[in-house]
Amino acid sequence: MNVTGVIVEYNPFHNGHFYHLQKSIDQTKADLVIAVMSGNFLQRGEPALLSKWERTKMALEAGIDLVVELPYAFATQKAEIFANGAVSILDALGTTHLCFGSEQGDIQPFINTLSFTCEHQTEYDLEIKKYLKQGHSYPKSQALAFRSLNLPDMPIVDLSKPNNILGYHYLKAVKDQGSAISVDTIKRVAAEYHDANLTDNSIASATSIRQTIFAEGGQLHKIQSKVPDFTYRRLDAAQKSGSLHHWEHYYPYLFYKLITVQLEELVDIYEAEEGLEHRMLRIVERTDSFKAFMEELKTKRYTWTRLQRLCVHTLTNTKKRDMKGTLTNKLAPYIRLLGMNQKGQSYLNKRKADLSLPLITNIRKNTPPLLDLDIKAAKVYALPDHSTNKYNEISRSPLRYDETEKTWL
Amino acid sequence: MNVTGVIVEYNPFHNGHFYHLQKSIDQTKADLVIAVMSGNFLQRGEPALLSKWERTKMALEAGIDLVVELPYAFATQKAEIFANGAVSILDALGTTHLCFGSEQGDIQPFINTLSFTCEHQTEYDLEIKKYLKQGHSYPKSQALAFRSLNLPDMPIVDLSKPNNILGYHYLKAVKDQGSAISVDTIKRVAAEYHDANLTDNSIASATSIRQTIFAEGGQLHKIQSKVPDFTYRRLDAAQKSGSLHHWEHYYPYLFYKLITVQLEELVDIYEAEEGLEHRMLRIVERTDSFKAFMEELKTKRYTWTRLQRLCVHTLTNTKKRDMKGTLTNKLAPYIRLLGMNQKGQSYLNKRKADLSLPLITNIRKNTPPLLDLDIKAAKVYALPDHSTNKYNEISRSPLRYDETEKTWL
Repeated sequence: MNVTGVIVEYNPFHNGHFYHLQKSIDQTKADLVIAVMSGNFLQRGEPALLSKWERTKMALEAGIDLVVELPYAFATQKAEIFANGAVSILDALGTTHLCFGSEQGDIQPFINTLSFTCEHQTEYDLEIKKYLKQGHSYPKSQALAFRSLNLPDMPIVDLSKPNNILGYHYLKAVKDQGSAISVDTIKRVAAEYHDANLTDNSIASATSIRQTIFAEGGQLHKIQSKVPDFTYRRLDAAQKSGSLHHWEHYYPYLFYKLITVQLEELVDIYEAEEGLEHRMLRIVERTDSFKAFMEELKTKRYTWTRLQRLCVHTLTNTKKRDMKGTLTNKLAPYIRLLGMNQKGQSYLNKRKADLSLPLITNIRKNTPPLLDLDIKAAKVYALPDHSTNKYNEISRSPLRYDETEKTWL
Repeated sequence: MNVTGVIVEYNPFHNGHFYHLQKSIDQTKADLVIAVMSGNFLQRGEPALLSKWERTKMALEAGIDLVVELPYAFATQKAEIFANGAVSILDALGTTHLCFGSEQGDIQPFINTLSFTCEHQTEYDLEIKKYLKQGHSYPKSQALAFRSLNLPDMPIVDLSKPNNILGYHYLKAVKDQGSAISVDTIKRVAAEYHDANLTDNSIASATSIRQTIFAEGGQLHKIQSKVPDFTYRRLDAAQKSGSLHHWEHYYPYLFYKLITVQLEELVDIYEAEEGLEHRMLRIVERTDSFKAFMEELKTKRYTWTRLQRLCVHTLTNTKKRDMKGTLTNKLAPYIRLLGMNQKGQSYLNKRKADLSLPLITNIRKNTPPLLDLDIKAAKVYALPDHSTNKYNEISRSPLRYDETEKTWL
């Protein structure tokens, strides 16, 4: 049985995701598809446009059979930790194939690059350190270090592209974890990840879709051709009820946190390093928006996403000590089920006894370490909604979708 | 020269305050009047309706010559610490007379009560402990303990009344600090402190005035006859611009704080004691207003105001260690000047060299310990105003009022 895993954020689910999903199913001859999806806060250090529950609905309607959550402790992290968490969950669920989208589009250069960097690990690490010392960001240093090595005469991958970096780390995580998952990639079409402008055809990047949605005046209709109907309906409803989430909605809380926090508390926050905490305290009082705050915080040494992740951890009050286990283990300690269709449910029922990680379907009964971070993140995520019952992650059950009747059970 | 001190909150300044001020001037033959006023957060653990700057203006327009701030570390405190802070500031400014309003209205019973409790201190303290153990609040235990003593055959004061308690502590602070200030009292007229309903005549309590202002539909006109014109104008303008401050406006921030704080951090908050921190964490998620939160938090053991003060300290992230100096010294470490008229200014100029505490007119130049708590409290106080420049306590200069021309300089 071919069980294909995809690692996704779906912020929001768009035609490019649908294309990737279809191609993955074809290419791997998938009998079942599992998505590991970031929760309410994403890898780039942003709140998701729609909650993990809304995004799970879109994933199921798009044809995914099982949706599980990448815990906060792995999701709002740099590529390496993100990848390790996601791969460990897919592996525990019995995934046979992993298929990721990349700018590269061909798996061999990833394999070449990985084996080359492993062979030259010491040299590679030294080069990375050198570029970090020169004040470059970590991803930039990685890319520069790689280029400075005496490269082999075979196709390698461009590690300056965001989806190539993620893909490289998926492959590395599979290798490091000794997983039997077979990894393949599909070329992302039409839109580059960072594209800000909508192109004419039916595929646009999630970044450009979000920017269009939040552009002056709310131009939701402009993205209608770029997303499936089930996405459009949800975005439209959320926009009408004012519940599309955006960092700016959280800025009053981050601001409040920073004007009241004591320095020694801020030092404890995960990813508050090398004087960033002083910088945050110094600039907060002269900035009245998240955008202005980030622009003042930004330096060459840190990527925008690295700094946004620090802001998320500050907002959720996540401490260095909370992440200790994550950094040591690199493996997710549980599988949190968000949703499934009938096929997904029977698969789970069959495999239940063999799962190598505890399966969480009901938080009330199980609270393994790190799950409290997900619960807290859900509460924080709901802050702009001004509704207390939305905070209640505890009483949520996994979503159940009837894929033939197209109804919710 | 008779220098009369009054200890005030003016939340807001009303006709009863005006009456008290006039009577104090007459009774003490005052040549100059100094007000020590709570800053943005008050003794009862509430944000002031109007900022300390607006309330300073009202005090100056009412005829007070000098307005200085009772620091946060003394203002948002139980009567004993509040009184010690205020008296130490008045003493440092050369005050000769202190005149307070009380339900009692005659100073002799205060003197009798103080000397009697001092003589029976050990017995009194034991009795207080006994009632505390029975689960009564501290003020209630004090009142019960006092009544259980074998009382002398002379007029004593009823320590169950809030202004009598404050007055008792003013007198005690003057005695304990060895101050030469002569203390007198004036009977509060017409309205009891806790009166919730407006009476027909021109004097109403600040509590009833606030309740009328915040009653359904905004009934500001109903209190017009209870306050001077200069108060009414300010309340009216603030109501129209939506900048009358109320605990409910801060509840989103308190809520956010409590859903993200870690237990060991909450334990460090000043006045978080005997499991109150567990209680706060347990109830916060089922309450969607400050009122509902307080009603769930309230027990017989703690007064409403004691719990509100805990909420203010939680909101401002004020730690037990921040208050250590206050609790040991009981004396204010500086005099923060908020406003003055010309008479007040020449008095200050003459006395400047003799002041026993540093005079703070400009925060940029002087930052003695504890002043950072005032600065932080001002930032937190401004949160609902959504305007960054309002946070800037640093650049404020004391207000200067021309009492003959009735203009601001």
